[in-house]
Amino acid sequence: MKVGFIGLGIMGLPMAKNMVKSGFNLVVYNRSMKPVKELNAIGVEAGSSPRDVAMKCDILITMLPDSPDVQEVVLGKGGVIEGVKPGMILIDMSTISPKVSVEISEVLAESGVEMLDAPVSGGQKGAIEGSLSIMVGGKKKIFEKCMPVFKSIGKTIVLVGGNGAGETVKLCNQVICAINIVSMCEGMSLCRRAGVDVEKMIEVVNGGLGASNIIANLAPKILEGDMAPGFKLRLQQKDLRLALQLAEELNFSMPVTGLTNQIFRIAEGKGLGEKGTQALIEAYNLLG
Amino acid sequence: MKVGFIGLGIMGLPMAKNMVKSGFNLVVYNRSMKPVKELNAIGVEAGSSPRDVAMKCDILITMLPDSPDVQEVVLGKGGVIEGVKPGMILIDMSTISPKVSVEISEVLAESGVEMLDAPVSGGQKGAIEGSLSIMVGGKKKIFEKCMPVFKSIGKTIVLVGGNGAGETVKLCNQVICAINIVSMCEGMSLCRRAGVDVEKMIEVVNGGLGASNIIANLAPKILEGDMAPGFKLRLQQKDLRLALQLAEELNFSMPVTGLTNQIFRIAEGKGLGEKGTQALIEAYNLLG
Repeated sequence: MKVGFIGLGIMGLPMAKNMVKSGFNLVVYNRSMKPVKELNAIGVEAGSSPRDVAMKCDILITMLPDSPDVQEVVLGKGGVIEGVKPGMILIDMSTISPKVSVEISEVLAESGVEMLDAPVSGGQKGAIEGSLSIMVGGKKKIFEKCMPVFKSIGKTIVLVGGNGAGETVKLCNQVICAINIVSMCEGMSLCRRAGVDVEKMIEVVNGGLGASNIIANLAPKILEGDMAPGFKLRLQQKDLRLALQLAEELNFSMPVTGLTNQIFRIAEGKGLGEKGTQALIEAYNLLG
Repeated sequence: MKVGFIGLGIMGLPMAKNMVKSGFNLVVYNRSMKPVKELNAIGVEAGSSPRDVAMKCDILITMLPDSPDVQEVVLGKGGVIEGVKPGMILIDMSTISPKVSVEISEVLAESGVEMLDAPVSGGQKGAIEGSLSIMVGGKKKIFEKCMPVFKSIGKTIVLVGGNGAGETVKLCNQVICAINIVSMCEGMSLCRRAGVDVEKMIEVVNGGLGASNIIANLAPKILEGDMAPGFKLRLQQKDLRLALQLAEELNFSMPVTGLTNQIFRIAEGKGLGEKGTQALIEAYNLLG
């Protein structure tokens, strides 16, 4: 069985490497050639286009930035759709609109291709360690067939519902993470402004009900002034936009997600989009 | 050495019981007699007023709802101040304004009384189990002298700064907890509105970067419809008010804390103030 992999970015490349380590026979494609060459060097085959990759594999993974990228790569000219055969499975691990994900699955179904949406959580660290959380939408039978693939890159692997449900759960996850980042930044900034030791505050808070993985992972970086991206601020913004878009489609109000999006924009507007999400603290430094 | 304890509410009573278990000789006071009688039954002495308790003890603990309560009990007519002697220590474990806490410590200092502000985190469960987080403000020497008392009721015990610093850290903790509750509620509500299994979403989120003690403790209650208070919604509101008041004194903007306060008010306005903080989910049920 051959597995295709399209999208070898900050997440995709280490995921592909872990699949190679687990013995999968990969064929890959990426717009820029650098990660392709890196995989070539360890014996991985390169496809010449998404279409070419699709023709050569049985299961195809896409790991791309946003909805339009997946639409283009799967349904566009020279895209996956031109190379598929019935029985193939597309696993889209990108974080995109649940609605777009369902639409793509419907087009693929017409060609006898099954789709799973399987976005991940855990950042670059989880991708490198093969410890990602994977939230999957689609048919149970297809999910079970793909389990060996998921196991090679993730730890918590849950089928959460039908097509699109994986994306919905991912957006809920992103809403929770982004607002948790805001909670940390408002707490830390209030403490600093009041002239109290922020490190000690974090120590106590993380020993109680306020403890979170966000604080455990990001507060030490803020205290050290390390703004390098584990997850980029502009991608967090993209996910908040997708969540707010979903809420709009559902006619549902998410006041704090909306405000969180605006506050992240302060940091983005100051040119911090390529920094890690912990750079949100800079927005609060500007506030006073 | 005799220890006084004033304020035997949902938190104070189990704390006093743990101190008795650890061998402390207590003298207690509470406005309503029910918890006093409960402690009487296990051999604990009752004082007739805050003044009377102060006259009988070397270390005095207060555990009261809000700033005016502590001002009244400590500095009011028949209050602690009328019964103190030099060398006594007052440990105020209430969550109150850092500014008021400092003011009280200054009045007490004139009578040779040392004060620590030592608010706690961990809720009724932590109070019963003796596993509270205690964030202490005051002098190091006094803090060390009181350590046996703290150890009888808490686990994470940190001196975070001078007088008032304990209260500041507690308010930071409450800001973080309250916004984490909002993050959970917006995520869960979006998931429900999108028709996706909320329990599975929580399972995945709590296996990744979105994991928090708030989700671990409160999401199961929401899923079971259990709104019984571990920590009352109206007291969470009181703490948000104190945090926003501190921010105002510092001329510092906390936009998400402000909005969180408003959203908690939706639930409070619907008569849910005596329910647990997880009842915030009802505000989102109203939103759609």
